[in-house]
Amino acid sequence: MTTTAAPGLEGVVVAETEIGDVRGAEGFFHYRQYSAVELAERRTFEDVWYLMVHAGLPDATEAAEFEAQVAPLRAMPPALEVALGDLAVGAPLDVLRSAVSVLGAAAGWGPTLDISHDELVAQSLQLGAAVPTIVAAAHRLRLGLDPVAPRGDLGHAANLLWMITGEEPAPAQVRALEQYLILTIDHGFNSSTFAARVITSTGADLASAVCGAVGALSGPLHGGAPSRALDMLDRVNGPADAEQWVRGTVAAGDRVMGFGHRVYSTDDPRSVLLRQVARQLGGRRVDAALEVEEAVVRTLAELKPGRSLFTNVEFYAGVVMEACGIPREMFTPTFAVSRT
Amino acid sequence: MTTTAAPGLEGVVVAETEIGDVRGAEGFFHYRQYSAVELAERRTFEDVWYLMVHAGLPDATEAAEFEAQVAPLRAMPPALEVALGDLAVGAPLDVLRSAVSVLGAAAGWGPTLDISHDELVAQSLQLGAAVPTIVAAAHRLRLGLDPVAPRGDLGHAANLLWMITGEEPAPAQVRALEQYLILTIDHGFNSSTFAARVITSTGADLASAVCGAVGALSGPLHGGAPSRALDMLDRVNGPADAEQWVRGTVAAGDRVMGFGHRVYSTDDPRSVLLRQVARQLGGRRVDAALEVEEAVVRTLAELKPGRSLFTNVEFYAGVVMEACGIPREMFTPTFAVSRT
Repeated sequence: MTTTAAPGLEGVVVAETEIGDVRGAEGFFHYRQYSAVELAERRTFEDVWYLMVHAGLPDATEAAEFEAQVAPLRAMPPALEVALGDLAVGAPLDVLRSAVSVLGAAAGWGPTLDISHDELVAQSLQLGAAVPTIVAAAHRLRLGLDPVAPRGDLGHAANLLWMITGEEPAPAQVRALEQYLILTIDHGFNSSTFAARVITSTGADLASAVCGAVGALSGPLHGGAPSRALDMLDRVNGPADAEQWVRGTVAAGDRVMGFGHRVYSTDDPRSVLLRQVARQLGGRRVDAALEVEEAVVRTLAELKPGRSLFTNVEFYAGVVMEACGIPREMFTPTFAVSRT
Repeated sequence: MTTTAAPGLEGVVVAETEIGDVRGAEGFFHYRQYSAVELAERRTFEDVWYLMVHAGLPDATEAAEFEAQVAPLRAMPPALEVALGDLAVGAPLDVLRSAVSVLGAAAGWGPTLDISHDELVAQSLQLGAAVPTIVAAAHRLRLGLDPVAPRGDLGHAANLLWMITGEEPAPAQVRALEQYLILTIDHGFNSSTFAARVITSTGADLASAVCGAVGALSGPLHGGAPSRALDMLDRVNGPADAEQWVRGTVAAGDRVMGFGHRVYSTDDPRSVLLRQVARQLGGRRVDAALEVEEAVVRTLAELKPGRSLFTNVEFYAGVVMEACGIPREMFTPTFAVSRT
């Protein structure tokens, strides 16, 4: 299956991938042949991470071994422990870009062309494990707070919440965030994955590829949508207001953030699950989002008949992350946590 | 005109560009409609830099103003003055990747999507001016030497040599390096430009785009060829040895580094000029390169009839940079100087 890349790259036709795939017409996507929505419903983030790395789901023993392998890698890498004070200027995603660059350089990661598969897996686990620690520390340093170290008794999603807030996360929030992270690990060819592929096509090292991917993610057209969808929810006050806002946006020729997706022509299956996750978390913001969604979808169906514009994953992503206690400037860094 | 990207991206078709273009069959390439080879023969690096930024060549007054604008930007940016000690671990190109990331984050460079053309030009001049200072400092710090500050009385190429070696560069070397830099400013769609385009397609900031491009450049398939061509010259001892080496390499199915190019089917015009530049610099290495080139081209014509494999720009790039006094680990960083 081939698909087309982001705006600004019109006409770019890219090749088939084995890891994650999207079938727009059926509203279906999978990681290594498993339905991603089913994985998000039934599995932990670590199980799915294992699946991406080892091409199969772990049994109980393998899952425990994987967690034991990953847990110590969550500590701030020594090279960054020293440098983070100097690096931590700017937005968390910019700091992540710098930190990944320094981490790879300090560790002397060789060209992907020249290293073994095992070495590459080891590097990717190190990076994936450290990203929550880095972005959470960058966020706290920016606020003038001390970074919070990861805890050995918490998993990936729980540690991210713990390190951002410094407070014990509630199980319902941890599970909701975990489901969001699973749903966004990979989604076929998007700009960040594509940037990483272009860079590794030269045989460059993993840090270069991830720097490029983080850079692409920092672009407002790629990574910024969930917080913009939430900005919209801040501005509109109930369904009537939402309807008026949609009419104004469409009349101005602007894109209605959080609705429609370049690949899907049916209701985005991730969005359906995230809506359900949001419902379970509950709260005033969720009620408002459900009302506004209904009004926006109805108005879009009237204004753009035949276009099938449903909510995309970004709409409820913002609602779910907010309900988990994640501050808005950390939305895209949280997305980076799953993508890495 | 469309062209095809690097290996690993088979099937990727990319769009037309306005700035630099390549026509393989005729062995011709241009920047903004000027022949790049003629520019390298007749113009300074700063003139061509001005051309890339302002879409026209400068008159004498404009050239002087441009140099006055760029000269102070060559100083190490304050954000890096502090951080470089921590960043300068690893190869100069990895340090450059980190430094660009920190520079953009510290300066708070906004998404390219949201900033004015003038602002983008100002950022690109700041980056372009600082790159020689950064890579030269990274190189010297790695050797345990103090960085050398840029001089106001020297141009871009002369400053690069000065900051790498700490010695007054000879005019012939400065001019040769300047010609090399002009010839490699842009060459249509290559992996580093392409990575930058994918990243900016998301509206990301300039630092993200350049980080991605530097990352792609660090890949051995993209940026490493000049030093590998020189490694070959180290190994072969005269024409007979060269012939034997080519036969062995072709028999093993390996690529003959420094010969052949994905785009050109005739003698690469940049290579022709660089050969001439090398001849003018002279020396034993240049004599050896000329002999080996002749033997390799002759043997390749015999082994791969009809394939038209001539020397590409990487072959004499290494020879010229070495003759200018640039150490081998600085070859790709020097290429990065022109590409930025």
